[in-house]
Amino acid sequence: MPRAPQTAARLEGIGGSVFERLLPRIRERTPRPTRLHIGDAADPPAYELPLDPDFREDRAHWFQYPNTAGIGRLRRALADHHRSVHGLDTEPDQILVTSGATNALSSALQALVDPGDEVIVPTPSWPFFRGMVRMSGGVVREVPFYTTEVRTDGLQRIEATIGERTAALYLNTPNNPSSRVLDAATRRAILEIAERHDLWVISDEAYDGMAYDGRATHPLSLYSARPENVLSVYTFSKIFRFAGLRLGWIRAAAPVIPSVDRALVHSVYSASSLAQELVLDPVRQFTRWSAGVSADLQSRRDLFLGTLDLPVEPCEGTYFAFLDAAPFCRRGRNPEDLIVECLDAGVLVAPGSDFGTDYGSWIRACFAAESRDAVEDAARRLRRVLAG
Amino acid sequence: MPRAPQTAARLEGIGGSVFERLLPRIRERTPRPTRLHIGDAADPPAYELPLDPDFREDRAHWFQYPNTAGIGRLRRALADHHRSVHGLDTEPDQILVTSGATNALSSALQALVDPGDEVIVPTPSWPFFRGMVRMSGGVVREVPFYTTEVRTDGLQRIEATIGERTAALYLNTPNNPSSRVLDAATRRAILEIAERHDLWVISDEAYDGMAYDGRATHPLSLYSARPENVLSVYTFSKIFRFAGLRLGWIRAAAPVIPSVDRALVHSVYSASSLAQELVLDPVRQFTRWSAGVSADLQSRRDLFLGTLDLPVEPCEGTYFAFLDAAPFCRRGRNPEDLIVECLDAGVLVAPGSDFGTDYGSWIRACFAAESRDAVEDAARRLRRVLAG
Repeated sequence: MPRAPQTAARLEGIGGSVFERLLPRIRERTPRPTRLHIGDAADPPAYELPLDPDFREDRAHWFQYPNTAGIGRLRRALADHHRSVHGLDTEPDQILVTSGATNALSSALQALVDPGDEVIVPTPSWPFFRGMVRMSGGVVREVPFYTTEVRTDGLQRIEATIGERTAALYLNTPNNPSSRVLDAATRRAILEIAERHDLWVISDEAYDGMAYDGRATHPLSLYSARPENVLSVYTFSKIFRFAGLRLGWIRAAAPVIPSVDRALVHSVYSASSLAQELVLDPVRQFTRWSAGVSADLQSRRDLFLGTLDLPVEPCEGTYFAFLDAAPFCRRGRNPEDLIVECLDAGVLVAPGSDFGTDYGSWIRACFAAESRDAVEDAARRLRRVLAG
Repeated sequence: MPRAPQTAARLEGIGGSVFERLLPRIRERTPRPTRLHIGDAADPPAYELPLDPDFREDRAHWFQYPNTAGIGRLRRALADHHRSVHGLDTEPDQILVTSGATNALSSALQALVDPGDEVIVPTPSWPFFRGMVRMSGGVVREVPFYTTEVRTDGLQRIEATIGERTAALYLNTPNNPSSRVLDAATRRAILEIAERHDLWVISDEAYDGMAYDGRATHPLSLYSARPENVLSVYTFSKIFRFAGLRLGWIRAAAPVIPSVDRALVHSVYSASSLAQELVLDPVRQFTRWSAGVSADLQSRRDLFLGTLDLPVEPCEGTYFAFLDAAPFCRRGRNPEDLIVECLDAGVLVAPGSDFGTDYGSWIRACFAAESRDAVEDAARRLRRVLAG
């Protein structure tokens, strides 16, 4: 039900140890106490890992449990990142470091959505989010939104779907799989709707920085008059290309951070200390390397779409091309047949049915997951299968 | 409700994409397809991390998404580990790699426990597990069990607590915080109870390998006639001392692994590729270094308890000492006052109330979290506060 900026009932009575209550007193009285209260090892592992010796020396705590909300240096670096990259004043206590965007989204849902609550999911959308809503006992309300043919009345349809049990609205721009980047007016309009109805906005900004042709991907909260109901989710897996580290973060109003942290503690305890230490410099140097990655992706997009030469959704961001294969489903071919035909031609593509009930005839292809040559060659094969 | 080896209703209708269904066909037809179906980057990150160059070259996929159940090499190494260390035949498809034991336990609960189900938690117990049960909508039934004064009728009280809604039984040996190591007869008796009542057994073996005075910490499933209802949970955070990597694993019967993986995918997607590559050699070399760590902990235990010189629970394993402070609560001192007095003496200890409703007057101290000298000094201070 509409409750923003209040959190879910689920969290009541969870966590909150005696220790937590004593913590301010601890800090005040005893600046350097002997810490026997935690189960951790003071000695380094008996087996030495292949890390640079300078790094190992400089980041002495890489093998120990971190603060569950993230190590202080990374929270500060990410706050600076939002300030310098997005022009958005951010304090470290507005940052929660997570084990990837998946863990950020699942923790946010656990903290904000109670069983029976509805979550509006504009589609097409990343499939795991819908699964997470169901896992938390919530109900998914899909609204076709991002693709060209439904753009005209998308906002009205979102607002018409809000009911007495609606707790949250999921947004994702740049959008996986449609590759759409919402413009500033649309972002603002959506936030106004959420504000009007006291909804939480879970804004999946995994593809932040991955927009083309000069488009901006500013955080959604930038467009909000009441940013305390917007949780923006980021990842180190996309433009940073550290998918293998499983690291992400949430930027939100400071009061909601401890609630999401409580949910996080009960799913993974904390993000990896080592991974957090490793991304510290890449975050600090973001503006030096990110434009190059984005430009490279844009040129991959041009190569892929130029070779494919078929009508796809305008590719404004992400590293996906999304196309409706319905026009190619003549002569008794169904969408699943097409996927198998692509496969027989040596190319794996993702079936649209994964991205929403209204997208069964669509196909998603990633133009970054293989070498440039392989992607170009695959585009040629896909063209032959679909248009041939 | 009793359902083992069936999983929870929660998972129905979650996951299971068209793609998953096509996967066997994919493997059969196209041995090396071009993979455009996933959102991942073929190119390495634009920012170089401080990893050993040989490692980086040898483990080419460290920066990409792994299989959600774990990388093949690590699953094989862990299967071998159970065979060589525990004498327990294990296949790689019985292993699920997780983001720490916390993530293993929370994923197991999501997969096995539906809202309203009861989970029996023998106490004293690690507090986050009880929080996770509540987070998943389950109901915690505490049964005092591990400490000396309740050992005589513990098994009968566990069995008497089983009812129509009981779905699972949580076990943890070596036990945090009591440091008890269950003997073989008790392990077998508990599993017989679980088997008789069709309960899932979630066996938290985080402190595997950390038992003293020649005690064994064999996996609980070794004592089971029907091991398909036992999930054993392990971590790289304790004897391995890689808490900062946030990595663990589950060993269970092969049929339940995909269900827990589905829950895992919806909380963190997968464990870190880099962390998995990093622990591969430490796992393979386990027998070469683990006895030394265990012996070192045993000598730390002797130092700590010898200096403390107060009646504590027999310290059979883990790195905790657990003691009932009730005898020291004379003259209007309550247990929380004691914690604060310890703090004022410069030593943080964990309050027993975190470990179960029956342990409010207890105190837990870890003898591994600080240097040997600091631990010895802290033991002296604690003695002064408690007995002084």
